[in-house]
Amino acid sequence: MAKKKMILDLDTGVDDALAIAYALAAPEVDLIGIVSAFGNNRRDICAQNSLKLLELLGHPEVPVYNGADHSCTTDHFDPEQVSLDIHGNNGIGEVELPDPQRSVEEESGVDFYIDAAHKYGKDLIIIPTGPMTTLAAALKKDPEIAHLIGNVTFMGGALTVEGNVSPVAEANIHQDPKACNEVLTSDLPLTMVGLDVTLRTLLTKKETAKWRELGTKAGKAYADITDFYIDAYYNLDIDKNGCAIHDPLAVGVGIDPSFVTTLSLFVKCVYEEGPYYARIIGDNAKLNDPNPNVKVAINVDKERYLNVFMDLLTNLFKEH
Amino acid sequence: MAKKKMILDLDTGVDDALAIAYALAAPEVDLIGIVSAFGNNRRDICAQNSLKLLELLGHPEVPVYNGADHSCTTDHFDPEQVSLDIHGNNGIGEVELPDPQRSVEEESGVDFYIDAAHKYGKDLIIIPTGPMTTLAAALKKDPEIAHLIGNVTFMGGALTVEGNVSPVAEANIHQDPKACNEVLTSDLPLTMVGLDVTLRTLLTKKETAKWRELGTKAGKAYADITDFYIDAYYNLDIDKNGCAIHDPLAVGVGIDPSFVTTLSLFVKCVYEEGPYYARIIGDNAKLNDPNPNVKVAINVDKERYLNVFMDLLTNLFKEH
Repeated sequence: MAKKKMILDLDTGVDDALAIAYALAAPEVDLIGIVSAFGNNRRDICAQNSLKLLELLGHPEVPVYNGADHSCTTDHFDPEQVSLDIHGNNGIGEVELPDPQRSVEEESGVDFYIDAAHKYGKDLIIIPTGPMTTLAAALKKDPEIAHLIGNVTFMGGALTVEGNVSPVAEANIHQDPKACNEVLTSDLPLTMVGLDVTLRTLLTKKETAKWRELGTKAGKAYADITDFYIDAYYNLDIDKNGCAIHDPLAVGVGIDPSFVTTLSLFVKCVYEEGPYYARIIGDNAKLNDPNPNVKVAINVDKERYLNVFMDLLTNLFKEH
Repeated sequence: MAKKKMILDLDTGVDDALAIAYALAAPEVDLIGIVSAFGNNRRDICAQNSLKLLELLGHPEVPVYNGADHSCTTDHFDPEQVSLDIHGNNGIGEVELPDPQRSVEEESGVDFYIDAAHKYGKDLIIIPTGPMTTLAAALKKDPEIAHLIGNVTFMGGALTVEGNVSPVAEANIHQDPKACNEVLTSDLPLTMVGLDVTLRTLLTKKETAKWRELGTKAGKAYADITDFYIDAYYNLDIDKNGCAIHDPLAVGVGIDPSFVTTLSLFVKCVYEEGPYYARIIGDNAKLNDPNPNVKVAINVDKERYLNVFMDLLTNLFKEH
C-alpha cells in the first residue's frame, strides 16, 4: 500500500509534539513536512520546537515551513499566559533540547501547501492542529487546491460539548475564527476532531512512566514534556484524571477514520465579536443541504486509539 | 404486542396538534392522557385546544390534565408575540373548532404522572413537547418515578445546530431551563429530539392538500391549521421550503427510535441568565461518565419518517 503523504500544521506545543511522534511512528504515513503556526507559542518558537523534536526522533530530513505568525484579522500575536502555563514557557514543558542542525525552509508554508496539493492530490492529508490561518491563505492564493487535496483532518472546535476558551469556543479556533470559516466554507473535504472526542482520550503518568523506563533520550524527553502537561491539567483543574491528547488524535483519525464516529453536518464558524465568537456550529440554513461540508467526530473508540497511540510512540521512543 | 402507554405533555400549538393526531393514529400506542403545558399559548387555551382536537379526531375518551401554567422560576406566563404569529392567536392557526364536550380533569398533571408511573412502569412513554415544568414537579414530589418510567422522549433543545430563540436556546427549553435541567439530571431514561433533527423534517402544502382533498372535517381542519403554520414559516422567513414538524417527530421516535441516529451524551441545561441561557450542551465534567444521561437525536431518516407520518395522519383524517 502506498503511504499517505501527510503535512502537519502545528503550533508546537506538548500535544503537537505527541502528534509529530505519532506521524513519524505510523507505518502508513510519509510525513512530508510541517507548517509552523502561532498559537501555543509564537510561530518561530513553535518552528524551532518542531525541528528539535524531528531531530530527537531521528528524522532531520523532514522540512519545516513558516506559516502565518498572526491571525488574518490582526497584525501581531502574543501567546496567552494560560498557553504558557499549560505547555511551558518554551512550549515543550520546559524541557531543554539541543539546538536543531536544520533551519526553517525558505519556501513559505502557503507555497508548500499549494505545491504539495498539485504534486500529491488525493494522496495528501493535511492535519492542522492550531489556527488555520496558513491553510486559509493557501486557499485564497490558489482556490483550486480545495479540489485536489485528499483530506483535511483538523483538531479544533467543540460541537456537542463546551469550549475551553469560552462556553462555545475552543482554543485553536479562537485564535483565528475567520480563517477557520474560510476553510469550512471552501470545498475541502474536512474532518473535525474537536473537544467532543479529544477530551475523552486521556493520558496519565502511568503511560509516561513506560516511556521513561525505556532509558532512551526520546523516551525520557517525551515523558518529561508530557508530565509537565499532565501536572498543568491537574494544577489548573482542567482534568484531574490525566491530560487530553488532542493533536495526535487528529493524526490518528487522518490515518484511520474508524477511530471515531462522525456526524456529517454543514457547519460554520462564527467570527463576529460577542459571546458566540469562534463557535463552530451547524448552519441551520444549510441543514438540508445534501452535501454537508464536514464530518464531525462525535465519539471515539478511546481504548483502541490509546492502545495504538501507546504502541506506536513507545516503539518509536525505544529506538531514539 | 401490548400497546405502549403514552402521555403527551403539550402546549397545543400547531405541531402539538399534529403530535396528537400521530399518537392517536399509531397502532402501537394507547394514548392514556394529555398534560397541558404553557408555551405556545396559555395553559388553559392549550388544554382547550387538546380537548377540541381529541373530539375532532373521535377520541373524546382521552383525558386532559392541567400541568404548570408558568415556569418554576416565575409566577406568571404571557405568550410571546412570535408564538402567536407562528401558531395563531388561538394556538391552532385561527381555525375555529366546536367547544369541547369534556372538561379538563380534576386531578393535576403532576399526580397523573405519578399515578401512571406506578401503574404502568416501563410500559409508560412520556412525550413532552413544551416546557418540562410539570414533569420536573412530578419528579420533585415523587423521585421514585425516575426509576419506573420506561422512557421520556422530549422535543426541545439544539445541540449541533443554532437555537430558534437565541443562537444557543430552543423555544421549549427557553420557557423553563431550570425545570429542564432537573429532568436532565434525574435518573429518567431520556431521548432528546431537538432542532438538530426536527428542522430536517419539513411539511409542505403539497401534503396538506391531500388532507383537504379527503373532504372530512378533520382533514379540512388539519389542512387549514397546518397551512397557517406553513405560511408563518414563509412570512417570518423561518423556512421558505415548508414547516418543521417538531412535535410529532418526538412521538414517532418515542414509538420507533430507529427513525433517528442518536449520540449518548451527558448533557446539562444552562439556567443562569446570560448569553448561554437555556443551552443544552454536553457536560464536560461528565464526558467520561460511563452512563450518559441522554440519547440525543443527531440525524433522522426523514424520508421514512415523513412517509409514516403522512400514512398515519391521512388514514386517521379519512375517518373523521
